[in-house]
Amino acid sequence: MLTLTVAAPSHSYPIFIGSGLLAGLAQHLAPYVGKKAAVITNDTVAPLYLQSVQTALDALNVEHFSVILPDGEAYKNIESLNHIYDELLRRHAERGTTVIALGGGVIGDTAGFAAATYQRGAPFVQIPTTLLSQVDSSVGGKTAVNHPLGKNMIGAFYQPQAVIADLAALSTLPPREFSAGMAEVIKYALLGDADFLDWLENNIAAVMAQESEALTQTVYRCCQMKAAIVAADETERGIRAHLNLGHTFGHAIEAEMGYGNWLHGEAVAAGMVLACRLSEQTGHLTPADTGRAAALIRRAGLPDAPPRFPFEKWLAHMRHDKKVSGGTMRFVGLERIGQANITTVEDTGILRRTLAPYL
Amino acid sequence: MLTLTVAAPSHSYPIFIGSGLLAGLAQHLAPYVGKKAAVITNDTVAPLYLQSVQTALDALNVEHFSVILPDGEAYKNIESLNHIYDELLRRHAERGTTVIALGGGVIGDTAGFAAATYQRGAPFVQIPTTLLSQVDSSVGGKTAVNHPLGKNMIGAFYQPQAVIADLAALSTLPPREFSAGMAEVIKYALLGDADFLDWLENNIAAVMAQESEALTQTVYRCCQMKAAIVAADETERGIRAHLNLGHTFGHAIEAEMGYGNWLHGEAVAAGMVLACRLSEQTGHLTPADTGRAAALIRRAGLPDAPPRFPFEKWLAHMRHDKKVSGGTMRFVGLERIGQANITTVEDTGILRRTLAPYL
Repeated sequence: MLTLTVAAPSHSYPIFIGSGLLAGLAQHLAPYVGKKAAVITNDTVAPLYLQSVQTALDALNVEHFSVILPDGEAYKNIESLNHIYDELLRRHAERGTTVIALGGGVIGDTAGFAAATYQRGAPFVQIPTTLLSQVDSSVGGKTAVNHPLGKNMIGAFYQPQAVIADLAALSTLPPREFSAGMAEVIKYALLGDADFLDWLENNIAAVMAQESEALTQTVYRCCQMKAAIVAADETERGIRAHLNLGHTFGHAIEAEMGYGNWLHGEAVAAGMVLACRLSEQTGHLTPADTGRAAALIRRAGLPDAPPRFPFEKWLAHMRHDKKVSGGTMRFVGLERIGQANITTVEDTGILRRTLAPYL
Repeated sequence: MLTLTVAAPSHSYPIFIGSGLLAGLAQHLAPYVGKKAAVITNDTVAPLYLQSVQTALDALNVEHFSVILPDGEAYKNIESLNHIYDELLRRHAERGTTVIALGGGVIGDTAGFAAATYQRGAPFVQIPTTLLSQVDSSVGGKTAVNHPLGKNMIGAFYQPQAVIADLAALSTLPPREFSAGMAEVIKYALLGDADFLDWLENNIAAVMAQESEALTQTVYRCCQMKAAIVAADETERGIRAHLNLGHTFGHAIEAEMGYGNWLHGEAVAAGMVLACRLSEQTGHLTPADTGRAAALIRRAGLPDAPPRFPFEKWLAHMRHDKKVSGGTMRFVGLERIGQANITTVEDTGILRRTLAPYL
């Protein structure tokens, strides 16, 4: 097991990363749980891991109850939030009651926002059970629910007391979702750490086979990088934007294909290849660099090319993306492998040349 | 006009206190408003003061729209909150759109929570139009809405960019509500500042006549005291509890009489007299001290005695109060006039003797 301490503005908290942590959960949970706890989870995760959490809470003599939401992004909404509030109040949860999120990003975001706002802030512990939530949602304190008129529109910055990332939980994740999480892993390697990229290329088979040590390293390095980027952004506005590598192209793919048909991670994977091709056009990368990124993406079981659709549709989707302001479009590209940059596009010709092979 | 600067954990902000500030609002608002603003108000305040705010925003070339809620504590709820979210999104409010609360405590609390959670935090400006909200809600950053199962259950700590307290707005306040606000004013004088109490006794006629200079002093001193207490509580846990002087008895009165029949301020006024009587029982105050407090309360147009109801009902209500833990009840009392203390009651005999004249 590895422990990463994250220094958030309000307090520092640990991320415990290891295989089998749910089996010995009481020990890790003990310092971070109050006399009472509410476990928020969904109907896919509950049959798999809720018992482990309940057993740990029983062992610690913590009074507890569970709220089980339906699984899926469609339930990351105000109705689910109100259901959590209702249950917290019906079960007489107090300001000191610990809210435990057991599940992926949707559960973490929704339960986290409920914790942030219940009696103006209840202690919060995250037990992420997907690769995506382990590498991406555990750091940064972003909580939110969706509104019919926009994703993540209602939310708060709120830091957990602790994050417990059990890599063994990933064994029950559908392979396609594991791969989607790998897109974010590869993103960290490409945007900020050439050493980690080397390591990942040498160990991708072990990671994909979910070998405990390789996975532990992977999640640890990603959390560490995100923590550094989030901390740097406190003072230096803009670095955090690098986390959107591949996302502008990716959002266009998601929008064109209909949300959910391409998983977010799949769209980001293809988007990162396009970001590499854009950086070829600006003279920063070589085709060999792009080929290196694409090969890793393929080995992670992810698409290295977007679906085919007309250039005008790409433009329309990307102009709607929130990272576009005025007539100028801003993309996260690569200065070199292992170092992101911001590429400002005023002439759409460069985009047409980037996308030409896929139109 | 007086300006008080409040040092909140996240940032410092000014409270502008003076008569006629709404008439010259553009000048005070200019540094604190973005390119776009949403004014949240209610259907009592809108006909009186919304035009002033709209004129100021027009003068500043700020794009703006208004959300008008029905007036009343009954509308400080999740439905109103969702209505605000819907309007913010429908009108394409951005993260930088300034949310302006124009109204009393209900509007301030609801709009403040909407601002705290819209896109994880939009800038927030308060224009309190009641005495209670000017002295009490402008400092401390507490925002919240009620839930059917409890008051202020859903909320956040969120600081405004600025507070603009126009004392001229109080001229349209029903006299009974002005008096209810005075209960909080007298509370500050009793619990923390004997000098202010002297001043208030000498100037109560001018304050009740809403003379501009006397009112400005009054609101300034109360905000200053609350800011000091809130700041002290960052390090020294418990001082903030002093703000509940009179509230345990007051909540029992409100609960017994049905919420809304006695205004909160009226119940707190009678509750403060009872807190004085309790402090007589513990040997800290004399009947003359209590008489002094009661006289000021009467001169502010407030009740100096509770309604009559049986001791058992008092006990039942107070045991339900959140400041009661286990068999022990904690009351905020007075060490002396101008200095609060915490009185722990284990023997209910002392409460019976305190309440005897009113049973």
